[in-house]
Amino acid sequence: MIKARASMEHLFRVFTAPEGRESKLAQIERHLSSNLADFLSQHVVSKATSLEDIEQHFAEFTVPEEPQFVSDHAESLLKNLVANSVNTYSPQFIGHMTSALPYFHLPLAKLLVGLNQNLVKIETSKAFTPLERQVLGMMHQMVYQQDADFYQAHLHSANYSLGAFCSGGTIANISALWVARNQCLAPQGNFKGIAKAGLHSALQHYGYKDLVILTSRRGHYSLSKAADILGLGRDNLITLDCPEHTLDPALALAEGQRLQAQGIKVLAIVGIAGTTETGHIDPLDELADVASQLGCHFHVDAAWGGAMLFSNTHRGLLKGIERADSVTLDAHKQMYVPMGAGMVLFKDANASNAVRHHAEYILRAGSKDLGASTLEGSRNGMAMMLYASLHIFGRQGYQLLIDNSLEKAHHFADMINQHDDFELTTEPTLCLLTYRLFPAAVLVYVEQHPQQAAKVNQLLNDLTVAVQKRQREAGKSFVSRTRLEIQRHAGQKLTVFRVVLANPLTTSEHLQDILQEQLTIAKQTHAWQALLNYCELQQSQ
Amino acid sequence: MIKARASMEHLFRVFTAPEGRESKLAQIERHLSSNLADFLSQHVVSKATSLEDIEQHFAEFTVPEEPQFVSDHAESLLKNLVANSVNTYSPQFIGHMTSALPYFHLPLAKLLVGLNQNLVKIETSKAFTPLERQVLGMMHQMVYQQDADFYQAHLHSANYSLGAFCSGGTIANISALWVARNQCLAPQGNFKGIAKAGLHSALQHYGYKDLVILTSRRGHYSLSKAADILGLGRDNLITLDCPEHTLDPALALAEGQRLQAQGIKVLAIVGIAGTTETGHIDPLDELADVASQLGCHFHVDAAWGGAMLFSNTHRGLLKGIERADSVTLDAHKQMYVPMGAGMVLFKDANASNAVRHHAEYILRAGSKDLGASTLEGSRNGMAMMLYASLHIFGRQGYQLLIDNSLEKAHHFADMINQHDDFELTTEPTLCLLTYRLFPAAVLVYVEQHPQQAAKVNQLLNDLTVAVQKRQREAGKSFVSRTRLEIQRHAGQKLTVFRVVLANPLTTSEHLQDILQEQLTIAKQTHAWQALLNYCELQQSQ
Repeated sequence: MIKARASMEHLFRVFTAPEGRESKLAQIERHLSSNLADFLSQHVVSKATSLEDIEQHFAEFTVPEEPQFVSDHAESLLKNLVANSVNTYSPQFIGHMTSALPYFHLPLAKLLVGLNQNLVKIETSKAFTPLERQVLGMMHQMVYQQDADFYQAHLHSANYSLGAFCSGGTIANISALWVARNQCLAPQGNFKGIAKAGLHSALQHYGYKDLVILTSRRGHYSLSKAADILGLGRDNLITLDCPEHTLDPALALAEGQRLQAQGIKVLAIVGIAGTTETGHIDPLDELADVASQLGCHFHVDAAWGGAMLFSNTHRGLLKGIERADSVTLDAHKQMYVPMGAGMVLFKDANASNAVRHHAEYILRAGSKDLGASTLEGSRNGMAMMLYASLHIFGRQGYQLLIDNSLEKAHHFADMINQHDDFELTTEPTLCLLTYRLFPAAVLVYVEQHPQQAAKVNQLLNDLTVAVQKRQREAGKSFVSRTRLEIQRHAGQKLTVFRVVLANPLTTSEHLQDILQEQLTIAKQTHAWQALLNYCELQQSQ
Repeated sequence: MIKARASMEHLFRVFTAPEGRESKLAQIERHLSSNLADFLSQHVVSKATSLEDIEQHFAEFTVPEEPQFVSDHAESLLKNLVANSVNTYSPQFIGHMTSALPYFHLPLAKLLVGLNQNLVKIETSKAFTPLERQVLGMMHQMVYQQDADFYQAHLHSANYSLGAFCSGGTIANISALWVARNQCLAPQGNFKGIAKAGLHSALQHYGYKDLVILTSRRGHYSLSKAADILGLGRDNLITLDCPEHTLDPALALAEGQRLQAQGIKVLAIVGIAGTTETGHIDPLDELADVASQLGCHFHVDAAWGGAMLFSNTHRGLLKGIERADSVTLDAHKQMYVPMGAGMVLFKDANASNAVRHHAEYILRAGSKDLGASTLEGSRNGMAMMLYASLHIFGRQGYQLLIDNSLEKAHHFADMINQHDDFELTTEPTLCLLTYRLFPAAVLVYVEQHPQQAAKVNQLLNDLTVAVQKRQREAGKSFVSRTRLEIQRHAGQKLTVFRVVLANPLTTSEHLQDILQEQLTIAKQTHAWQALLNYCELQQSQ
């Protein structure tokens, strides 16, 4: 076997001379381009290889000493990595918020890396800077619908930014609350403001005992991370009970007033537009009222649900979002852009100046460099992917996709409701719903023995866990699972299947097959037997 | 002209049916693959289009209503975006830390998007999780050189992580200092720790008046951002003078002791291994001693210089890095990986547990999900790019590249030193150096009129700014500029050219041309004339 050599000649070729059409990487590319679904179904094995087995391929802990030919490495990537990755494109993988992507993102990804721009500043990104500002402007307009004068004044201004692109919803949420914190504890008189003087001095100056954020129990875990990193502490993220899965404005107001009466300042209320677990949308308009009564920042985490705004049919679901001081969006969710396209938007174009920073060699005062008010520094040109999607789909195209997903979710909810052996645990608000196995005979048993309900639910939880794991391991399809308190079941914490129906390639037949597969798997588990035994039922059930 | 329609049929095709070989995007791809340099020189116009002109192409602020065919959009991307982007691959663009990339990253980028994994958890990334852990382990081993037992115990353990992949050095620095802060103000007795209770309570519990970070004036601006977001306040990032461009350990110790005597706790010392402006490396070993004497965290920002560790010739420059509690690396700099490949590493595998978090539906306790201890949430599989590079280059290949860059920098420094009209302002430690125009006759004038030195330097500053701008606008080559206090010039702040010689395609001829071009441009500027007039010299100079 010929081995690669560590010579400058060899390295030069790695930079300048792509291998020919017959090289392994070129073959992979052609297959990806001509038929992505086929490439994935051929190469992503998706079978029950345990994580421990996979880890054996990634056990070496020193940097390889000698170089390797690209084609040899491509072979090993296919065998060890691609074969054991997840087929997110598959219409039967409906457990997550990633879905099939439109094919044009594949060549665009190549263009992105070929250009390899750095958006931290204009000198390394040039046209990508106005492009990103434009995309942020378009999303801002979709949320806030300001007039032409507003956008003409702010879109490309060195003194303002309408938001920031970032790697995902987590950074977007942190950025929003960072801005909120710095605005809340701004410079005043001789006090230099929290950005310079720190939280400790700021609380002393303003005479606040503490700073808290209010949200519902369904808030994303990134909010807790934000409370930690911003110095508030995770216990100061107050997560209110939400038996109906959405934040109760009256409860939020009462809690906020109670805290403020004690000298504890409410920094922000965070409303969720599409909770990660069930897709519910908080009553944004009422929460905006509460925020205004408490005199605090109103942030909306619309990482999942924000795309509803494209749909003239459904945008009413987000009524009140235009009153938010800041909004988080994730284009890599329902906007069908590859992973890594989060955004935060600010209603007030001046808001992000609360975290603005400068340096000598870049981000000079007065420059339009994007990095002057982003949490991240060097960043790639991912905004191009959303730019392309916005143009290729258009608002109308997105509306069709969104409306189609919602119809599919309602259709699946009907299928579950009509099925004897399943229970819908949360209705779809967006294209996300939860359900579980709950055989009809077990339901009859529980109705006859209500005092056994809690124990039966425990057995059903075991069943859901067992089925979800086996289904995942079988590799044909994938649903996720979560734990929820369900009102109807006396607030008991139930383990439920969770599905996200955003993949336009998923059909009614796929959904039917998934229910059938779950039932078949269920009947092979010990958990099923244990459940029937407990309810004194026969296996024929 | 046929227009695209917003129909489900049309949309389905966008997801499933790539256009044929003759489509515009397919043509772009083929050109990118067959000859990236040619593609860029043909399509990236790089001429003096002003930012304001470019902004005209990105002025629309509403989402387009109707869809567009992919090929039509690809045409407009070429015309408006690509044409006005920056040619980072060009061997004459030596002003930034991005360089030509090896060609295999282009097809890999396509594979990455085709797979579209989400590394936040195993369910959406499977083999990508052990791959990322392995890459972090390899980099950890390169820095810390622990033994096989250490890596066998920690590499794939659910209870530990050796670091985190992230979008870039900024997030890496923030992550490191977040961990440091939470370890410094950890739970103790009844006190729950800063992560839960917040900074305010933590300072009270520990009896600290304030919390500060020590670094040199050359520290990256992300450290100031970290001090802000973590709640310390930017004024609590103490940036010490460094006339020799590196942090003086004695000064750091004295300052730390002075502060701690006042009840102000030193959270961390940050050493820089490769400053952004001049490439200098702080005396890491001595700073490790200081950190140990002060009882604080020692972080090394090796975003730029970390790659020196690949070189057996030069790794001694980073002596002491193995004593750092945490280290920042950027693979998208001297490791030739596309933008978006930052890393933080922790010496102690347990360190990142100081910021660990869990949620019901993912990141369950005991899982190996990477997202449980990263600042970011959803992330793409960029680790694959570094994994491939480590294998295809091998340590030996990287050493050749690194050594080659350093030699080139020394060669360029010699060229500048030998040139009558240029002055080298900082020697290359890594492949980064600074210099400026300083005509021989002006030097003679200053030697004869030392009291005029400050004014002459101002005129030279104007000249540097004018030349750098014109050179950038001409689009043939690019060097950046920064402002530095130079000891030899009585500590006056000078504007200087800054070059980074990491592109393996840059030759000695390119460097010669760049000096010649700068001199030619200089002679056409008003600043040149003003300088000569002031020094009573003739234009012939």
